[in-house]
Amino acid sequence: MLIDPKLEQDSIFIKELELCQLRLLPDQENPWFILIPKREGAIDWCDLSKTDQHLLTDEINFVCNLLKTNSTPDKLNIGSLGNMVPQLHIHIIARYINDRAWPNAIWGTSAEMPFDMESVKRWSQLVM
Amino acid sequence: MLIDPKLEQDSIFIKELELCQLRLLPDQENPWFILIPKREGAIDWCDLSKTDQHLLTDEINFVCNLLKTNSTPDKLNIGSLGNMVPQLHIHIIARYINDRAWPNAIWGTSAEMPFDMESVKRWSQLVM
Repeated sequence: MLIDPKLEQDSIFIKELELCQLRLLPDQENPWFILIPKREGAIDWCDLSKTDQHLLTDEINFVCNLLKTNSTPDKLNIGSLGNMVPQLHIHIIARYINDRAWPNAIWGTSAEMPFDMESVKRWSQLVM
Repeated sequence: MLIDPKLEQDSIFIKELELCQLRLLPDQENPWFILIPKREGAIDWCDLSKTDQHLLTDEINFVCNLLKTNSTPDKLNIGSLGNMVPQLHIHIIARYINDRAWPNAIWGTSAEMPFDMESVKRWSQLVM
């Protein structure tokens, strides 16, 4: 399954799940995952079959719990936008009341702290 | 079920669905729905049971199709943020390539065009 080149360039492979490829955005301040359903041509939520939508919600739940357990967020933010990259992908982000964008949406802002590649190893081990 | 007073004040009741209350934001430029699961204390996606999450995804699908059929969006945006109002609620928004925020996230921006209450009647009839 082809992942959009921009999504591939901007994020790091973590794991193949049943429906989605799980990838991590290199954001040291706000742990930030994306789920990309492995279905050719899917752009909007309703492009997936009902079965796939249920699988998607199960995988969103998995990532939410992963972040809740390991990143103690004040709030989880979930979003499917795709205005720049149409391929359906779902952001799941740990938000903190003192983060750079709180309480606004965090899309379009950048972390100031440099990304530590150790995070990739840590998350990869946690989802094994 | 108690709806957060700010959500109630900022949006207009459209219909009771099985899991959620469907409400409309008064935005004349970008048709904008919110789904509020009728579950006390639910803040994050993973606070819902698996059954409720599947129901939620079915209701998201319903609203996506409603918007696709009646508002011909260029893209649908879906988001669950809740940084200002913690009660779990999901935004489903019709986006257009010439709208006020494109291609950025639209949260935190306001429509310039005044809201026409006829829209409420129209949507209410469409979801009957």
